[in-house]
Amino acid sequence: MKLATLRDGTPDGRLVVVSRDLQRAAEATNVAPSLLAALESWEKTEPRLRELAELLDRGGCADAFDFPAAEAAPPLPRTWQWLDASAFHSHGDLMERAFKHAPIEGKLTRPLMYQGGSDDFLGPGQDMPMPAEADGIDFEAEIAVVVDRVPMGTRATDALGHVKLIMLANDASLRSLALVEMKTGFGWIQAKPATSFSPVAVTPDELGPAWKEGRVHLPVSVRWNDQAFGHPNGGAMGFGFHELVAHAAYSRNLSAGTLIGSGTVSNADYRTVGSACIAERRAIEIADQGKVVTEYMRFGDRIRIEMLDAEGRSVFGAIDQRMVPAHSSAAR
Amino acid sequence: MKLATLRDGTPDGRLVVVSRDLQRAAEATNVAPSLLAALESWEKTEPRLRELAELLDRGGCADAFDFPAAEAAPPLPRTWQWLDASAFHSHGDLMERAFKHAPIEGKLTRPLMYQGGSDDFLGPGQDMPMPAEADGIDFEAEIAVVVDRVPMGTRATDALGHVKLIMLANDASLRSLALVEMKTGFGWIQAKPATSFSPVAVTPDELGPAWKEGRVHLPVSVRWNDQAFGHPNGGAMGFGFHELVAHAAYSRNLSAGTLIGSGTVSNADYRTVGSACIAERRAIEIADQGKVVTEYMRFGDRIRIEMLDAEGRSVFGAIDQRMVPAHSSAAR
Repeated sequence: MKLATLRDGTPDGRLVVVSRDLQRAAEATNVAPSLLAALESWEKTEPRLRELAELLDRGGCADAFDFPAAEAAPPLPRTWQWLDASAFHSHGDLMERAFKHAPIEGKLTRPLMYQGGSDDFLGPGQDMPMPAEADGIDFEAEIAVVVDRVPMGTRATDALGHVKLIMLANDASLRSLALVEMKTGFGWIQAKPATSFSPVAVTPDELGPAWKEGRVHLPVSVRWNDQAFGHPNGGAMGFGFHELVAHAAYSRNLSAGTLIGSGTVSNADYRTVGSACIAERRAIEIADQGKVVTEYMRFGDRIRIEMLDAEGRSVFGAIDQRMVPAHSSAAR
Repeated sequence: MKLATLRDGTPDGRLVVVSRDLQRAAEATNVAPSLLAALESWEKTEPRLRELAELLDRGGCADAFDFPAAEAAPPLPRTWQWLDASAFHSHGDLMERAFKHAPIEGKLTRPLMYQGGSDDFLGPGQDMPMPAEADGIDFEAEIAVVVDRVPMGTRATDALGHVKLIMLANDASLRSLALVEMKTGFGWIQAKPATSFSPVAVTPDELGPAWKEGRVHLPVSVRWNDQAFGHPNGGAMGFGFHELVAHAAYSRNLSAGTLIGSGTVSNADYRTVGSACIAERRAIEIADQGKVVTEYMRFGDRIRIEMLDAEGRSVFGAIDQRMVPAHSSAAR
């Protein structure tokens, strides 16, 4: 099942189901007004949403309409919690090299995770307002999952069933501020502007065999200003999402609708598959050429993030958006 | 004006106004169902809530009832964002000594801030469920403010007017995990279980001259197992709340209902006024006696946090709660 949210002037938007081919959509507000509301009683709403999705895929939904992917809101325009990990070890290794900081102790046995802003997400085609180019604007292509309520103390072996939806994220970062904030130990506030998400969120079964061991075994395609930038595979996560969920729930309950992120997708053969953020490519340049060649993003630059299945069909629709100066961005 | 939330089985609870002396309360759900909802249209709801509060203080509210402070929910049982600073410099200095980490660069000119869980707060009298005593359970007495919507890029000089409410917080911490997480640079996830808040939130005018320069110039009284532990003054913040709000809003909009915390209240004359968390006392013991004398909290220990005005009246009511093992804690 694929779900999306359309902008309607309310903070949580309007819930729709979307056809498997991302072409058609049908109102689901008679099931729940918003995706966040649906997640709060998922046991009741999921079967009804699946019924509607099946009807839509069979072409039996009289009120169906063309799905306006680019104008969609993020599936969750806001939610109660956004916990983003850094679960791809090759990314961590390269970032240490790029920013010349010491290796993080225990990073192979204990997930790295920060809490990001979750009150003001951006849709897949919305401009990303940024304070200044000088802050080092970067994209980060990630995979994120949505859980229902996870009680404190849930173990990894019991956590996978809590993963209800999967989507793509562009966890944009301001690299000049990121290192300053990281050095404080407090995590990132200014370095993490609003995150954006793919047009649709899908249930794990939608991925078929590509969803296994709590990982999405498909490459994420990243294009910067219409040039191929990387296509690392999501299957290389050092920790599965079940382990990330359990890590997050050690000393807190996770509310229904909590988002858990993979961190920038990255593979050990990065010289072949490329990267999913600029900082990582810069780290490779330092390693290979002794200097940085690639600059960060300029205002007006576009970033496109998409994931195709084994048959070449877009799973989540595409994030495709521009970086713009905050002071001149359209009202959101 | 003083506002509180009563538990009613819904996630956001039921909004009430509370008399200045904290004795009586009146339903405010005809103005807004919850405090979060009230904050989303504060310009409209504030005048109506103030009318009700004045009526209550004059004894003219027929439906008034005794305010059940200890059984209250936190004023905001959940909200979209909880950004907690570390704005008392003497606290930072002592923590560096306690945990033997290098001084944080730029900490006197740039606020330190992390994002905490905001989806599952605890009321002032609710037990705090903790995974294990071995994690080093500590309390942290803090001041927190609630803002209405703050647009990205708001400057400190324009930020003070966004502070709509003030309350006390117990930002409980697990110290054995805190240093491990801090060293990653990603901030705290496991080291920060649910935060609890005072029974009432008050508008800044309620503090009279004690609210100035974005700071609360009153001592916070901290008692651990009914023994006086500290009474540092909130006026010593190295940054005012307006500066913390502006820091947070550099690259993000802050939704109405965002909470901004002061970090543990601490004064330079800590040997006279004591501390507002155990870790700080331990740091002083290391400095003065060369070793730690005070252990962290045990299950069953109580912590009481309160702030009295110049006339000795409780401003926010008291946080007074026990630490309990998570696996045996009552359902929340």
